[in-house]
Amino acid sequence: MEQTERNLTMLTDLYQLTMMYGYYKSGNTEKEAVFDLFFRETGNHRAYAVLCGIESIIDYINNLRFTDADIAYLRSLNLFDEDFLSYLKNFKFTGDIYAMPEGTVVFPMEPLVRVRAKMLEAQFIETALLVFVNHQTSIASKASRIKHAAGDDAVVEFGLRRAHGADAGTLGARAAIIGGCSGTSNVLCGQLYGSEVKGTHAHSWVMSFESELEAFRAYARCFPNACMLLVDTYDTLKSGVPNAITVFRELREQGYTKNFGIRLDSGDLAYLSKEARKMLDEAGFPDAKIFASSDLDEYVIRELKTEGAKIDFWGVGTRLITSSDYPVLGGVYKLSAEIEDGVIIPKIKISDNPIKTTNPGYKKVFRLYSKHNDYALADVIALDDEVIDDTRPLKLYHPEQRYKSMVLVNFYARELLQPIFLNGKQVYQSPSLEEICEYARKEIGHFWDEYKRLLNPQVYKVDLSDKLYDLKQSMIASIKNSNEHHEV
Amino acid sequence: MEQTERNLTMLTDLYQLTMMYGYYKSGNTEKEAVFDLFFRETGNHRAYAVLCGIESIIDYINNLRFTDADIAYLRSLNLFDEDFLSYLKNFKFTGDIYAMPEGTVVFPMEPLVRVRAKMLEAQFIETALLVFVNHQTSIASKASRIKHAAGDDAVVEFGLRRAHGADAGTLGARAAIIGGCSGTSNVLCGQLYGSEVKGTHAHSWVMSFESELEAFRAYARCFPNACMLLVDTYDTLKSGVPNAITVFRELREQGYTKNFGIRLDSGDLAYLSKEARKMLDEAGFPDAKIFASSDLDEYVIRELKTEGAKIDFWGVGTRLITSSDYPVLGGVYKLSAEIEDGVIIPKIKISDNPIKTTNPGYKKVFRLYSKHNDYALADVIALDDEVIDDTRPLKLYHPEQRYKSMVLVNFYARELLQPIFLNGKQVYQSPSLEEICEYARKEIGHFWDEYKRLLNPQVYKVDLSDKLYDLKQSMIASIKNSNEHHEV
Repeated sequence: MEQTERNLTMLTDLYQLTMMYGYYKSGNTEKEAVFDLFFRETGNHRAYAVLCGIESIIDYINNLRFTDADIAYLRSLNLFDEDFLSYLKNFKFTGDIYAMPEGTVVFPMEPLVRVRAKMLEAQFIETALLVFVNHQTSIASKASRIKHAAGDDAVVEFGLRRAHGADAGTLGARAAIIGGCSGTSNVLCGQLYGSEVKGTHAHSWVMSFESELEAFRAYARCFPNACMLLVDTYDTLKSGVPNAITVFRELREQGYTKNFGIRLDSGDLAYLSKEARKMLDEAGFPDAKIFASSDLDEYVIRELKTEGAKIDFWGVGTRLITSSDYPVLGGVYKLSAEIEDGVIIPKIKISDNPIKTTNPGYKKVFRLYSKHNDYALADVIALDDEVIDDTRPLKLYHPEQRYKSMVLVNFYARELLQPIFLNGKQVYQSPSLEEICEYARKEIGHFWDEYKRLLNPQVYKVDLSDKLYDLKQSMIASIKNSNEHHEV
Repeated sequence: MEQTERNLTMLTDLYQLTMMYGYYKSGNTEKEAVFDLFFRETGNHRAYAVLCGIESIIDYINNLRFTDADIAYLRSLNLFDEDFLSYLKNFKFTGDIYAMPEGTVVFPMEPLVRVRAKMLEAQFIETALLVFVNHQTSIASKASRIKHAAGDDAVVEFGLRRAHGADAGTLGARAAIIGGCSGTSNVLCGQLYGSEVKGTHAHSWVMSFESELEAFRAYARCFPNACMLLVDTYDTLKSGVPNAITVFRELREQGYTKNFGIRLDSGDLAYLSKEARKMLDEAGFPDAKIFASSDLDEYVIRELKTEGAKIDFWGVGTRLITSSDYPVLGGVYKLSAEIEDGVIIPKIKISDNPIKTTNPGYKKVFRLYSKHNDYALADVIALDDEVIDDTRPLKLYHPEQRYKSMVLVNFYARELLQPIFLNGKQVYQSPSLEEICEYARKEIGHFWDEYKRLLNPQVYKVDLSDKLYDLKQSMIASIKNSNEHHEV
């Protein structure tokens, strides 16, 4: 099913509109500009992020228009004149957007989305693009870590009630699935995106019956083919697991033999799961699964697995759906070029803080893979007219410490940015969530575990092409020169 | 303008539907239950929270119904029979909801929302109620801390681009305003809720002109009556502030004399603001305001003010809109009673972790104020049929450490829970955002600063009435007894 068509045109910062008004009143409606969306840091022990939010951008751009009610509201602010409000009435996005596919493993400073459009249009869409990519990428990235800790075990997203509102719950669940979860408890996510939905019952179910056994029996009558029982309402090992076993036996006598399981939601999950596993095995239910939830994240899962916890499925809530240890990916959207008479004029923003100095120009990103084992070796940010000749050795330099370099041989290159909109028309066929997950699984498989380590991971190489490096240095030098002259 | 009518019926955890199905198939469709929504901890140096999310609950309940498309999707899951799907088709909420007003200062363990309804209905709405209250309360609470640090200075919410999606940005901005912000950059929030919207221009505006001065002049031509200039694109004190002063002089020559200001968005805000203040004053613009943004939160604002920073307005983004140091208020929704033949049967959930043991029964909350100075003295959670006689001294005990007690005299009591829905019909007249803010300002003014301290605040007293305490102890004892018998 398609995502609900929602017009989010007014989801913007006021300064986008005041700037548009400024460009409009300056007669500056036709000048074109290029903006890059990127982030500067992956955050808290993360070496990579998993890109997400592109589908929301597509919906947003396709639904972008100011309604009469929007115009009336903007008129009421007494900031804009009628000329401009008439212009807004016919406003639409007519430029080009390139983006990396959702599920791509991405790194700091790489343009993830590249917008080339009339300045007014490119500027206006900044806020919404950042909202979608910042939020969804941070959740997909957290999910990827959690899935890495869980190994081959399935991880289910369980956090809706702790999400930052309806969108955060639903788009967050979708992002979590792209990051590696196999399903979600969120029914709306299932309906909108076709994800697997999961869930059984809560403590209140058990409390509302005269006894735990009666509650389990009532549940088993409803779902004899998928009987997952929550066993910690009163006492996990003395009451919950024995009662669950009684009910599994009764189901087996009735001919139901599959999809039995228990859920642990409190207590020491390592100890309880090992004891429960023994009890289930001894009772003749070695196939019964153990599902665990309760304040989990990648670190807790890693610890529990190290201790030999017998857990088959992990239900992860709060800390996933909010990426609570790093709740914000600080993505930004920066002017990188202007286009005058068809000529690209690179732009740079210099800052005292080197990481805040931007990479100028109309750029693209190559990922270089080993021909030997298909592992990703490094990424290169280059200018758009550059090609990489993978038949010859390639020398790469660290983007700042240029004495650090390496020579790649026996590699092949892939371009990561793909056209999504050209002249305002969508040219990209959106993949299904299943297709995105398939791509994301392959994508993460191209990276060494060293980059996925939960603490102090290896830093992946993202270099600048020689041409881009030279452009950047010459622009910095020329600005420094003119500043020094200014000071004299 | 009214909030968009959005049907969020499917925004739920699957287990709400599987439990509903269970109750339905057990013939258990008429039994009534009572659930309390509350949180157990205020989190990271917070002594209180500011309740928010009630208006979203009202919208949700009023729009609650399963569409044909929803039913078709649920059918496709192969979990439910046609009887139940027909039941869902006519499902609506027919019970009672009491809640504290938005903007109320609230504390751990207090029922913030109390639902009495048929078990199926009360259970089903759990997830959505938690989403709204958890998210919005956490943002309003963070905003309250930031406003406390800013004192009389205005704080503006600037975080949309870092919010967890469109809802988080818009409802989060509304919550921030309830918590104490005076406006937001989010245009959609302004349109939906009538909040003030604020914003001027970005670095890209400055970069897109030949010079900073030209960029400032162009902006001043568009907004001569509200000329706030971003001065840190090249060099704040050598270029930005002098150019701004040039433009203010030009405006003054044209007869514009009000609402001049500069925005600092990087660098050392204490130093830069003090120097900029001097420059503005010396140039004859003592009324020009200084607006600061750049990774602000309550701690940074407190430090900068302590250093004597000359900042008039604070633009707070990322750390407010995500409440990044405590991104989740862990609100829960727990069964507290069942109703059989009109009789309330209290229910309790016991846990090894004392804080997870619930308060049983159909409850309400009193806030006790000093008649002397109207400061709040303590809250009391009581059973619904209790009254507090404020003409006589009242002895209060700590809810666990009963040897701690105090006697209140010369106080008056206010009940905090108000009827929102009765028999499924809305009986509450929703206040406007302005009215809520007015209430919230008064409400926080009833609390001593000791509770608002940014680090290690004083804990506010929330006691149980004697009757509730006795009920809780007797239920715990009776369950312990039956468990011990069970073990023998």
